[in-house]
Amino acid sequence: MGTVIDGCPAGVALTTEQLQAALDRRRPGQSAVTTARAEGDKVEVLSGVYEGKTLGTPLACLVRNENQRSQDYAKLAREDRPGHADLVWRERFKHRDPRGGGRTSGRETLSRVIGGAVAEALLQRDFERVKTVAWVSQVGPLIAPVPGLGLTRAHVDGHPTRCPDASTASEMQALILKAKADGDSYGGVIEVRTEGLPVGLGEPVFGKLKALLASAVTGVGAVTGVVWGPDDLEARLRLPGSVFHQPRSDGAPSEVYGGIQGGLSNGEPLTVRVLFKPPATLADHAKQGRHDPCILPRAVPVLEAMVSMVLADCVLMMQARRHSL
Amino acid sequence: MGTVIDGCPAGVALTTEQLQAALDRRRPGQSAVTTARAEGDKVEVLSGVYEGKTLGTPLACLVRNENQRSQDYAKLAREDRPGHADLVWRERFKHRDPRGGGRTSGRETLSRVIGGAVAEALLQRDFERVKTVAWVSQVGPLIAPVPGLGLTRAHVDGHPTRCPDASTASEMQALILKAKADGDSYGGVIEVRTEGLPVGLGEPVFGKLKALLASAVTGVGAVTGVVWGPDDLEARLRLPGSVFHQPRSDGAPSEVYGGIQGGLSNGEPLTVRVLFKPPATLADHAKQGRHDPCILPRAVPVLEAMVSMVLADCVLMMQARRHSL
Amino acid sequence: MGTVIDGCPAGVALTTEQLQAALDRRRPGQSAVTTARAEGDKVEVLSGVYEGKTLGTPLACLVRNENQRSQDYAKLAREDRPGHADLVWRERFKHRDPRGGGRTSGRETLSRVIGGAVAEALLQRDFERVKTVAWVSQVGPLIAPVPGLGLTRAHVDGHPTRCPDASTASEMQALILKAKADGDSYGGVIEVRTEGLPVGLGEPVFGKLKALLASAVTGVGAVTGVVWGPDDLEARLRLPGSVFHQPRSDGAPSEVYGGIQGGLSNGEPLTVRVLFKPPATLADHAKQGRHDPCILPRAVPVLEAMVSMVLADCVLMMQARRHSL
Amino acid sequence: MGTVIDGCPAGVALTTEQLQAALDRRRPGQSAVTTARAEGDKVEVLSGVYEGKTLGTPLACLVRNENQRSQDYAKLAREDRPGHADLVWRERFKHRDPRGGGRTSGRETLSRVIGGAVAEALLQRDFERVKTVAWVSQVGPLIAPVPGLGLTRAHVDGHPTRCPDASTASEMQALILKAKADGDSYGGVIEVRTEGLPVGLGEPVFGKLKALLASAVTGVGAVTGVVWGPDDLEARLRLPGSVFHQPRSDGAPSEVYGGIQGGLSNGEPLTVRVLFKPPATLADHAKQGRHDPCILPRAVPVLEAMVSMVLADCVLMMQARRHSL
Repeated sequence: MGTVIDGCPAGVALTTEQLQAALDRRRPGQSAVTTARAEGDKVEVLSGVYEGKTLGTPLACLVRNENQRSQDYAKLAREDRPGHADLVWRERFKHRDPRGGGRTSGRETLSRVIGGAVAEALLQRDFERVKTVAWVSQVGPLIAPVPGLGLTRAHVDGHPTRCPDASTASEMQALILKAKADGDSYGGVIEVRTEGLPVGLGEPVFGKLKALLASAVTGVGAVTGVVWGPDDLEARLRLPGSVFHQPRSDGAPSEVYGGIQGGLSNGEPLTVRVLFKPPATLADHAKQGRHDPCILPRAVPVLEAMVSMVLADCVLMMQARRHSL
Repeated sequence: MGTVIDGCPAGVALTTEQLQAALDRRRPGQSAVTTARAEGDKVEVLSGVYEGKTLGTPLACLVRNENQRSQDYAKLAREDRPGHADLVWRERFKHRDPRGGGRTSGRETLSRVIGGAVAEALLQRDFERVKTVAWVSQVGPLIAPVPGLGLTRAHVDGHPTRCPDASTASEMQALILKAKADGDSYGGVIEVRTEGLPVGLGEPVFGKLKALLASAVTGVGAVTGVVWGPDDLEARLRLPGSVFHQPRSDGAPSEVYGGIQGGLSNGEPLTVRVLFKPPATLADHAKQGRHDPCILPRAVPVLEAMVSMVLADCVLMMQARRHSL
Repeated sequence: MGTVIDGCPAGVALTTEQLQAALDRRRPGQSAVTTARAEGDKVEVLSGVYEGKTLGTPLACLVRNENQRSQDYAKLAREDRPGHADLVWRERFKHRDPRGGGRTSGRETLSRVIGGAVAEALLQRDFERVKTVAWVSQVGPLIAPVPGLGLTRAHVDGHPTRCPDASTASEMQALILKAKADGDSYGGVIEVRTEGLPVGLGEPVFGKLKALLASAVTGVGAVTGVVWGPDDLEARLRLPGSVFHQPRSDGAPSEVYGGIQGGLSNGEPLTVRVLFKPPATLADHAKQGRHDPCILPRAVPVLEAMVSMVLADCVLMMQARRHSL
Repeated sequence: MGTVIDGCPAGVALTTEQLQAALDRRRPGQSAVTTARAEGDKVEVLSGVYEGKTLGTPLACLVRNENQRSQDYAKLAREDRPGHADLVWRERFKHRDPRGGGRTSGRETLSRVIGGAVAEALLQRDFERVKTVAWVSQVGPLIAPVPGLGLTRAHVDGHPTRCPDASTASEMQALILKAKADGDSYGGVIEVRTEGLPVGLGEPVFGKLKALLASAVTGVGAVTGVVWGPDDLEARLRLPGSVFHQPRSDGAPSEVYGGIQGGLSNGEPLTVRVLFKPPATLADHAKQGRHDPCILPRAVPVLEAMVSMVLADCVLMMQARRHSL
């Protein structure tokens, strides 16, 4: 898997260790709740960084696939996996590389995580207080309470399910292990929250922050919806506006807006809830390939990365068009 | 309001009447359930069309604001409307034109509707069977049954609420009129469905059809979520994958995927559900300005337009990169 | 003719008068050496400016064609003008609007001049010392001496030929008037010089300042070459490098590089020489249409505009990717 | 050196051998007239090609620098080379990797040659008759006669100077060897000619074929000008239009237009003349580094590549916007 990032300014502090640490959080084989594939996913930085700082030139990385068992994919190459996109991609491109699942493989998210790590380094340069943290808030029928502000990645990573609520996390783990034993799977919800953002990120009309985030997170495989606001949206839509929009006592906009107004960041915590459908790889395929009964724990760093990339792009755009030097 | 469309091929059949017909479906003041503002919204085509066909040059249109009552906005220019983005935009750009609500005005959707009409003309040239139809499927607590394939815009437009189910539509109308009398408002859900699409629209990784659609529809004001699949998604996410993905009897992918697999169109009907929050303009402002208790009926043609623009872009991309002449 | 400029930051001081003044310098009918068409070319600003400052929204302008004599073009619409692109454009687009010469008309440069005026306003905001001045340095066989630094547009505009050397200017005027009487035409060279630039404008590889300028100026109709360095390049290429690159006594790079090194501005005066072929409209067509025996005087503000737009883009790019806040 | 090409359609016949053959034509150390550095420049294709055909995914290549003598550059890293861009780049990016000359190294053209080979494979798929051939037409004071149509790369490569006229080529070789012995250098002119193009390539206003080519070729290091038309342009600009534009006996546009009219290809041979200044590396530096007395012979495949990339882009654009299926 190769990754090229162009447009990153020169002079941003960045090390290979930062990139590797980001990849390690995404790596499969970390716990019983994820796929058994133990991929090393060692990143090699080919260009763009020199003496611990970006050069302003394209940043190119390679992550070699050390553990690919081609025979695992050999059989799959001959048939269409139900629920997978094999048939659709063959129809479009007429020519396809079946090794590793091709471009529809989940390994593609390696690049997203690398991009996110670079974006975070850039954001840190200018806005030290910006922190993006995602967590698993729902797995199948199990829903965790909303955590308070100041949540850290270390806390989220403290449980294999990446649900920060200890009690719900244990139930989730049991549910996922049962699904694994049954050759079954579960979807759910990941929430992503960014604190410490400046006001005004996003561009009008076709580049609203909301639209950029929606595009970024729905581009991740298995995502089947994105909603704004911290709690169950479909229930709240049944309420009249007079209740839905109740202002806070201090007169500021309520956090139900998810940190975005008129398409731009409003300085409040940015919250987006991302819905995942259950993985499509079912029992008989699971026996041959590598079965992931619930991809949500591993998708947490991927969504953090996608949100960070959008925010970094918005910062660069805002810098380009700022109203005075 | 000005609109410029660049990149449309030459030779596409297009008349001013087509554009005007599209705008007339969006126009306020059409019924008791929408704002009382009666805007003429007459479109003037300045360039790009000659003798009923596009020239391949930029297509520029003007829609002059004939009914603007500047005094309505004069007071609003001085204060921050709760739930509006005035404050955020002022912080970002430091300089702002308050007339007509500025760039955050709902009049901005005029341009989206014009773009959609051009996109549809382009799609019709190559794919006659493509039909995009949106309808109001939920207003507040009222949810309509899913209509069958072959739904037409004429049928949807047959009721002021643009809900194609007569019984639910009547209830919705009563609910909206009551909200209007109370100075209250409602959100809900619009579904957009496209039938007749070719297989393979969309681009890998950052240009997946799902991501492009998510960006397009969430860029419309008041949209607060987008989900895929024809029925209540949050309920379905509680199910295990073995139930969620039940294949159809003929072995083809089930329509729960909403017409997209691996980021590309799969030839099945494309369905996207768009969630709207209730309008923020409340009672005391409603007395002075123009109050829209439920924007969903008028948002129907706007969402059809956004989806059509995405599809037309994808067709142009697929043409550019097709595998042989 | 319509013009839309997107991406200009908010808060840049800009008035309609500035745009009109720029257009007036391009306007035909100003003297005996240009076409007799007296076009008013009044600019109407539709959006993007409010109370003398840009809004950060698209800046849209219209210049209506008040003096179009459609009958002048009616006959031309039926036949292919030798040396014009009519046939090539018809082959590409299959459909063409013959009025006003269509998109290949020289009126298209109105938009370039408007863009240049906005770009200059933006450059002035950040870099007061930046001044771009172009002049006619060659008409047919007549070549003017290179003017010293500090040349002003007022000085250049002091002669109808826009050659700043009075003696050569008079000879040029006589030559052009004779060509006009004969139904003949002349090409030549315009030099464009920018003083006061910061170091480092331009982007590596595919966005070098040299490449961006080359693209910008060769996009103007009738341009047939672009060369760097202040004097006759083809003669100098016969010299060995030891002579060509003689360093200046202070050790700095010599101005033979034209202000660009490694693709970036080096802080010295930027000089580019633009070669124009003679207009193709010959005697018998000249009798019916409007004959311009030498377009160089009127192309001076167009080239200044193209260079200013490139420089403004580079400033925005440099701002976006600057190495620290 | 890494290269990534995105946007190439799937199914284009392409092998590593084609890419290597293209690189071999650019490789230094091929003859006495070029630098003595003997770089292997072996290309490794990392992605995008499978079973001899492109996949429609990004095509990534690596060319490792096997012969880098870091000590050659160690001293140069500490000082500013006269005529080089070191100082300018340091000012812009503040942080710079001196190894191999960094991004201003001539090795950067490896990527351009790879891109050109892919572009040619794409063009061949659709337009078999398209042939782009460049040759050295001038070195210092020596100017070769214009070769007839049908010139081949094999013929051009038959002489180390890549001048197709045997007599001039021998004189050029002697001149270059003398400059090498003297620690001196020469610039000159390369002509690039494309035969067999379809009519209509290029886009209006800012994407004219002429402008795209100008940008592409002037982005190559040491290029100091670009002119259109087959013979000495500055001399011809002294002529009146009645002579300059003399039509051919068959009424078609004369080839003095260089194959472009109104910004689009007109189906005639496309000719562009590219002016190179002499290399700046002089005697005392030449003793330590690797001295190239005349870069024109090795720049021939680089310019062919740049022109091919522009043409392939134009073909993709024309496909995207074609007027009917």
